[in-house]
Amino acid sequence: MLESIGHLINGEIHSEEEQAQAVYNPATGEPCAQVCMASEQTVAMAISAAKQAYPAWRNTPPAVRAQVMYRFKQLLEDNQDTICELVSREHGKVLSDAKGELARGIENVEFACGIPELLKGEHSRNVGRDIDAWSELQPLGVVAGITPFNFPAMVPLWMWPSAVMCGNTFVLKPSERDPSCVLYIAQLAEQAGLPKGVLNVVNGGADAVNQLIDDDTIQAISFVGSTPIAETIYQRASEKGKRCQALGGAKNHAVIMPDADIDNVTSALMGAAYGSCGQRCMAISVAVAIGDKVADALVDKLKHQVEALKVGPGSDDTNEMGPLITAAQKDKVTNYVTQAVEQGAELIVDGRNLVVLGYESGFFFGGTLFDKVTPAMDIYQQEVFGPVLVVVRVNSLEEAVSLINQHEYGNGTCIFTRDGEASRYFSDQVMVGMVGINVPLPVPVSYHSFGGWKRSLFGDLHAYGPDSVRFYTRRKAISQRWPTGEAKDGTLFSFPSL
Amino acid sequence: MLESIGHLINGEIHSEEEQAQAVYNPATGEPCAQVCMASEQTVAMAISAAKQAYPAWRNTPPAVRAQVMYRFKQLLEDNQDTICELVSREHGKVLSDAKGELARGIENVEFACGIPELLKGEHSRNVGRDIDAWSELQPLGVVAGITPFNFPAMVPLWMWPSAVMCGNTFVLKPSERDPSCVLYIAQLAEQAGLPKGVLNVVNGGADAVNQLIDDDTIQAISFVGSTPIAETIYQRASEKGKRCQALGGAKNHAVIMPDADIDNVTSALMGAAYGSCGQRCMAISVAVAIGDKVADALVDKLKHQVEALKVGPGSDDTNEMGPLITAAQKDKVTNYVTQAVEQGAELIVDGRNLVVLGYESGFFFGGTLFDKVTPAMDIYQQEVFGPVLVVVRVNSLEEAVSLINQHEYGNGTCIFTRDGEASRYFSDQVMVGMVGINVPLPVPVSYHSFGGWKRSLFGDLHAYGPDSVRFYTRRKAISQRWPTGEAKDGTLFSFPSL
Amino acid sequence: MLESIGHLINGEIHSEEEQAQAVYNPATGEPCAQVCMASEQTVAMAISAAKQAYPAWRNTPPAVRAQVMYRFKQLLEDNQDTICELVSREHGKVLSDAKGELARGIENVEFACGIPELLKGEHSRNVGRDIDAWSELQPLGVVAGITPFNFPAMVPLWMWPSAVMCGNTFVLKPSERDPSCVLYIAQLAEQAGLPKGVLNVVNGGADAVNQLIDDDTIQAISFVGSTPIAETIYQRASEKGKRCQALGGAKNHAVIMPDADIDNVTSALMGAAYGSCGQRCMAISVAVAIGDKVADALVDKLKHQVEALKVGPGSDDTNEMGPLITAAQKDKVTNYVTQAVEQGAELIVDGRNLVVLGYESGFFFGGTLFDKVTPAMDIYQQEVFGPVLVVVRVNSLEEAVSLINQHEYGNGTCIFTRDGEASRYFSDQVMVGMVGINVPLPVPVSYHSFGGWKRSLFGDLHAYGPDSVRFYTRRKAISQRWPTGEAKDGTLFSFPSL
Amino acid sequence: MLESIGHLINGEIHSEEEQAQAVYNPATGEPCAQVCMASEQTVAMAISAAKQAYPAWRNTPPAVRAQVMYRFKQLLEDNQDTICELVSREHGKVLSDAKGELARGIENVEFACGIPELLKGEHSRNVGRDIDAWSELQPLGVVAGITPFNFPAMVPLWMWPSAVMCGNTFVLKPSERDPSCVLYIAQLAEQAGLPKGVLNVVNGGADAVNQLIDDDTIQAISFVGSTPIAETIYQRASEKGKRCQALGGAKNHAVIMPDADIDNVTSALMGAAYGSCGQRCMAISVAVAIGDKVADALVDKLKHQVEALKVGPGSDDTNEMGPLITAAQKDKVTNYVTQAVEQGAELIVDGRNLVVLGYESGFFFGGTLFDKVTPAMDIYQQEVFGPVLVVVRVNSLEEAVSLINQHEYGNGTCIFTRDGEASRYFSDQVMVGMVGINVPLPVPVSYHSFGGWKRSLFGDLHAYGPDSVRFYTRRKAISQRWPTGEAKDGTLFSFPSL
Repeated sequence: MLESIGHLINGEIHSEEEQAQAVYNPATGEPCAQVCMASEQTVAMAISAAKQAYPAWRNTPPAVRAQVMYRFKQLLEDNQDTICELVSREHGKVLSDAKGELARGIENVEFACGIPELLKGEHSRNVGRDIDAWSELQPLGVVAGITPFNFPAMVPLWMWPSAVMCGNTFVLKPSERDPSCVLYIAQLAEQAGLPKGVLNVVNGGADAVNQLIDDDTIQAISFVGSTPIAETIYQRASEKGKRCQALGGAKNHAVIMPDADIDNVTSALMGAAYGSCGQRCMAISVAVAIGDKVADALVDKLKHQVEALKVGPGSDDTNEMGPLITAAQKDKVTNYVTQAVEQGAELIVDGRNLVVLGYESGFFFGGTLFDKVTPAMDIYQQEVFGPVLVVVRVNSLEEAVSLINQHEYGNGTCIFTRDGEASRYFSDQVMVGMVGINVPLPVPVSYHSFGGWKRSLFGDLHAYGPDSVRFYTRRKAISQRWPTGEAKDGTLFSFPSL
Repeated sequence: MLESIGHLINGEIHSEEEQAQAVYNPATGEPCAQVCMASEQTVAMAISAAKQAYPAWRNTPPAVRAQVMYRFKQLLEDNQDTICELVSREHGKVLSDAKGELARGIENVEFACGIPELLKGEHSRNVGRDIDAWSELQPLGVVAGITPFNFPAMVPLWMWPSAVMCGNTFVLKPSERDPSCVLYIAQLAEQAGLPKGVLNVVNGGADAVNQLIDDDTIQAISFVGSTPIAETIYQRASEKGKRCQALGGAKNHAVIMPDADIDNVTSALMGAAYGSCGQRCMAISVAVAIGDKVADALVDKLKHQVEALKVGPGSDDTNEMGPLITAAQKDKVTNYVTQAVEQGAELIVDGRNLVVLGYESGFFFGGTLFDKVTPAMDIYQQEVFGPVLVVVRVNSLEEAVSLINQHEYGNGTCIFTRDGEASRYFSDQVMVGMVGINVPLPVPVSYHSFGGWKRSLFGDLHAYGPDSVRFYTRRKAISQRWPTGEAKDGTLFSFPSL
Repeated sequence: MLESIGHLINGEIHSEEEQAQAVYNPATGEPCAQVCMASEQTVAMAISAAKQAYPAWRNTPPAVRAQVMYRFKQLLEDNQDTICELVSREHGKVLSDAKGELARGIENVEFACGIPELLKGEHSRNVGRDIDAWSELQPLGVVAGITPFNFPAMVPLWMWPSAVMCGNTFVLKPSERDPSCVLYIAQLAEQAGLPKGVLNVVNGGADAVNQLIDDDTIQAISFVGSTPIAETIYQRASEKGKRCQALGGAKNHAVIMPDADIDNVTSALMGAAYGSCGQRCMAISVAVAIGDKVADALVDKLKHQVEALKVGPGSDDTNEMGPLITAAQKDKVTNYVTQAVEQGAELIVDGRNLVVLGYESGFFFGGTLFDKVTPAMDIYQQEVFGPVLVVVRVNSLEEAVSLINQHEYGNGTCIFTRDGEASRYFSDQVMVGMVGINVPLPVPVSYHSFGGWKRSLFGDLHAYGPDSVRFYTRRKAISQRWPTGEAKDGTLFSFPSL
Repeated sequence: MLESIGHLINGEIHSEEEQAQAVYNPATGEPCAQVCMASEQTVAMAISAAKQAYPAWRNTPPAVRAQVMYRFKQLLEDNQDTICELVSREHGKVLSDAKGELARGIENVEFACGIPELLKGEHSRNVGRDIDAWSELQPLGVVAGITPFNFPAMVPLWMWPSAVMCGNTFVLKPSERDPSCVLYIAQLAEQAGLPKGVLNVVNGGADAVNQLIDDDTIQAISFVGSTPIAETIYQRASEKGKRCQALGGAKNHAVIMPDADIDNVTSALMGAAYGSCGQRCMAISVAVAIGDKVADALVDKLKHQVEALKVGPGSDDTNEMGPLITAAQKDKVTNYVTQAVEQGAELIVDGRNLVVLGYESGFFFGGTLFDKVTPAMDIYQQEVFGPVLVVVRVNSLEEAVSLINQHEYGNGTCIFTRDGEASRYFSDQVMVGMVGINVPLPVPVSYHSFGGWKRSLFGDLHAYGPDSVRFYTRRKAISQRWPTGEAKDGTLFSFPSL
């Protein structure tokens, strides 16, 4: 019988009497565990546990709270192999890729260690005669996070370490596709000293999500996933009057200028487009070549490297790319490719018929490359979330920027050039939240915040980093004046000013 | 024929061929002007003007943009008498009160002068080897503000100076009850050098508001008004995927501790409860007395002062209180008082039958005081927005804080005490956004932000001050690495980390 | 033969062929080790090692450098018993006191972990048309710290963790009285991964200090010690054109208001005056009683508790107070007491003749209390650095503040009161760098900076916390404009402005 | 009889009974006024006035203080013609150059308007259980500034607006060469509402400077001038235990990369080298050409333009360059040129014998250009402070950076290139405080701070901008804990930690 993956509520694992759903190993196509799908009562219990834990946690000094994060960082490092194996088994990504993901997650834990500095409010002496004023960033209460399958270790660490260091308690609903590592990591946090109930994990589907959004105890929602779901969640949370940040999909363009070194660009694009089988919201899926000369050279080099991609199970670290997450996703990517051919895109490398020996039932899909794709094609407009890179040819940087700015998404982008002017024009004018200059995956480090523009993010504050501290706190403004023993003030009927 | 108040679009006043609605002088109860109610075409024209003006304004250096604010501040000061007369005539408030309001509005203009400092992003050298990263706070594009009748000069100045200094262009929809001063001030801004189309003013009602929310060009909505409208606007803007900050109603409590000087408290409460006829979102409408001894003394002193309140037209600066904004509001307040009597509140001073000689048709309402009000009564639960103060008696500070925390609103509050411990307990525990310690109207100065908690504010960022800069900008995170001439990088398929 | 304490240079211990000096166990009065006193060559070798290590360390990304601090924190916690035993043995303080010291030192290591956030510069887009500007906080190079005997574990951790995290390399010259724990801690840092040569420790006396100040390689000097030495060092470093922060002595006053709870005040003063045998720069050595009633009650209570002080070797954790650091210091304190009696101070408890059984040769000195001390007496004017508390009687808070402001030192102070007005008047008006309101030892937490006013600190930036990052870095301001391909600029002979 | 230029003390002009010294019009070589040289009594009177004005000014809320700056900005703009004529007459610079200078000075006034934001301290709730901590940046008291002749309008505005907005009062000792505009501007400040005694101006020489440094009332010294004087002042102020920032000389290099557009570079260098007759601490005086090809092209183009320089009195705005400041300075520059020729530098354009018709007694010196200058020559090592540009030829960017880093000065520098990698290598590695990338005079805007490295600045905080606020304030750290009514604390003898 398959291992059952439960919930972590108030420091205890709950896995009884619940509906369950299979978790697959995408490399074999076989179930490897089953995950409990939380009932309404289970979700309510998690919320209640977080509510109970809140008052004591709120009143714990931030510097004391931070001690948990220091120990947690150490435990994550000590147990990275276990975590990465869980990630690789259920998600499919190559072990070294899981390690990269975890490393970026640990970075967020490091950021959270600095909470005493980050929570500082602003103090003003004498805003008026003998009146002082200051601000405090107080915690919200119980907050919730909903995270996607593609970074099961990292994305939860974008959210809850910052939230709980701000003094909140948390209910996390991870993806039901690869829930094991989340649960394991949450238990490490408790081992590090996080009090019971401060972080609760519930597994489940849309019902659990809706319940979290609707429950009056939950003060804020953080979401990372696809744009349609992000939009729905943002609307539903706002309908309830809550604050929400909902990060959605992407179609990230790389612009290749004529002065770029094509060998370097090709290397960079191979990783950025095909790493993690293209299932990253920061993956490059469009290469915008400036001029045919650049395009021809680029396609030629890419072709050889895409054909040579080493695809196989993530547990073998010599592989460069693992499988897609589900059979359904494999079908979806296949359809996108077929449709693109029909719409006139030039298929340079076709990954549809890849078979990995010994893993014939795995959800593998070969690296795929298109040339001469146009903005009207679906393969250009849609987020494919698979190992498919399309080349679009334009004549100038201005045209490239205009193209990018017209796309509905605005998550990440990059430019390859040596030229200062080109880089500045690009970074200034492009309507995209994260910009790389010769950096193919410009994921900001943990002390800068992460967020896209346009339909890649709903809300005003970005994820992790400084913005997350503002998102997970409420500003309180205090004005203080002490009465002098003798003074008697007259009534001021008019509006007070200096 | 009455003067017609039009719209300011692309630097020109438009008042032709529109539906119009009367604007009243609340002191006389007579119409004093009529305001054009924008058609769909007019609103569209304003949005279009803002869109046209955006690119050039966005690219104007912030320090150059700031020059407009310096001149604008001077013009506001030079023309304060004219502005305050317009405010007083259409709103009804006493001239000195209008001056206080304007002074706080000018403070926001001063804050906006500092935009070069406020727009600074964060720069990190070597986030990885030879990789630098920085953030920019770029403008959103065209944004809109919707403002209430009660501070017609000040609240618009909370919004657009900060928004346009951030590089946005603006469409402002002020209250149709007292629109004249807004239009006058907007023209001063253009006189100060604000380019045409950067600030546009449209008058109108719910249709205009909905059109602003729904139009895809508008990137963000700021709203100040009542909670039901704030909630609706927040929901509708979020439904469209937009960022929104919507400030709503209030029921602000003042806690009077046994050690407080009752003479001082009485003076403070008189201004805070009856100034501007109670029509302030920061007005004190509940006095929470700790113990009967305090309550008895307080009610006794208040009674005499409320009875002695000098009520009359705002144009006479010796008056302490002017009329309510409309006849309908007068009826509403009357009903609240009548209902409270029926529900058992002890009516100490009854303002229902006040007649101001020579202004018999004015919307005047006398200062009203209740004692022994309980949390179950409507007069306690509802925002009355009139000159009505209720006294609630409790036995301890803990009980007072608990009372306040159970109310649906959490805008402002204050405590009167000399005691450090009481003040700290109160400011720490109370779930209210703006807290005064012996400051009856703790409106934060312009360089601290304004915002309530609970159902007093929807959104995560507060109004004006530092939060407004974050609200009116989008964060862009840039990661930069320059290729070295010789170096050839290998492909990194795994997720990049240090 | 006694253990020999050497230097740590470039990752190696050097203890050969040097002059040595005895290190005493102050509880026994016997030598417990001997410390090498660095020759000119040895100091030069340490400076050279730091210089060699600098370029690689400077170019290591801050987030990578921070990893050393995370591990170092863990090692300090794991080895706290060893460290505290070394501290107690050579300094004499009670073990629990040594633990308190170390805990505050570790706090500084935690602060240093946050270096990626702390090193952020400011970025401004469009300071002029198409001109961007930003600032970087770049390291200085090789910097030096000179630390006192009284906090051998903590004060070095105020300095070098922040300095090396900023990218500098360091030469530390600790006190020759209790050097063992410093060397031990430095070795833990290397065990944590600090590259050889980044932190070097040299033991020595005035010659070593002067050599460090004079050597052109050293870019900045941090010093903590007595005011005469601090002043000399500040002058000498400035003579060499270097930046210097030199923290000196103190005479910290506690003001006791009539509303204070005398039991609590007595408890607080006992720890603040006699803890660590009064050898703290933040020790309270003057109690300023407001009115005779307060003074009488206070002296009465203090008398009994001072007489009951449990004095003995620090290795016994049931003791409350250990010995003074040296026989010379014991003589000095004795002389101060004798002189005070001669000058008319009222001696309430006399600690001069204390004998600790079994430790007759130890440098013990009993808790001493004076009443009716006046500002003219030497015991009031001088920093005694021993377990001597004097009571000064004044009539008002204003008089107390005036008294404090006339003293040459301005390190720390505190007030005991419940009254908000008194606390605000005091904290606003008192010319002292660190103020406690009912906090007897207001040592700022690590993320706020430490520093006195007047002759307690020479320089402008305080120790540790945010100021230390500014002290250990040089600001670099970069203005950038990329040429457009076509544009030809005319010459601007006049000074450039917007 | 010549106009007598007095002192401004406590709001009154003092010009009686003092020694006086001639002020020259450098274009005519004739005296145009005489300046009073303050006696010891006069300086003491100025210090005393500042001391008297301090308490009231310190307690004036920053936002109220700022109103003076808003009005002052307006007055500076309204009177710019008068100011610039005074500057041009006594300094000699061309009117348009004086306007550029003044505009940058006004920028500093704008920065000072933002003082309420800039003075914010940091507030931390719960640094320990129920302990809050915050910092305040309190003013120092009376501070002094000593400013040079070359920017008589701008450099004083770097100092005192920031200092007085921080709450200090000020004594300014401007250059005795061109004192008129300083006095005029100070009077505008009083007209703007600056209270008497807050800003005092004394004219004088070295004795006045020394008196200011030595007087115990003066808390801090800001100086801008030549390096030998800066060093002396830094040493003397430090000897007195004071904080000091002393900005000295420069030898600013421009690096010209092979990819730079030589026409643009030539235009940029002409202004940067010869504007204001080279008498700017940010003037470019060394052009470092990478490779002979660049050097040959550059020298060729420069030659023609230098020969064509339009030199004449500054009052004629068609001139490009005015005279040197004094006859002595003319002799000094002449000697440098002569010596350079002797040492083997290749003289391309010789400005020694320039005669301006109608101004034969003026202190004019023609634009001078050297090629093939080597680091060993005096003309390379010394700050000439005249219209002399030298070309040094090197083979690589690395060599250029190494050259710059070996020079004793490190004020400003720039690079001309389109290449991102070159610019980043340069800005990262060069040991210079202000770096321009295609910006020939990288004077930071007012909201970034100004300061050189190495012997171009003594002290740790830079001039104007954020650093100036830290320089002109003392940090006060407050820790606050309110006693609970019941609680009785035990004594803590050990050092307090969390």
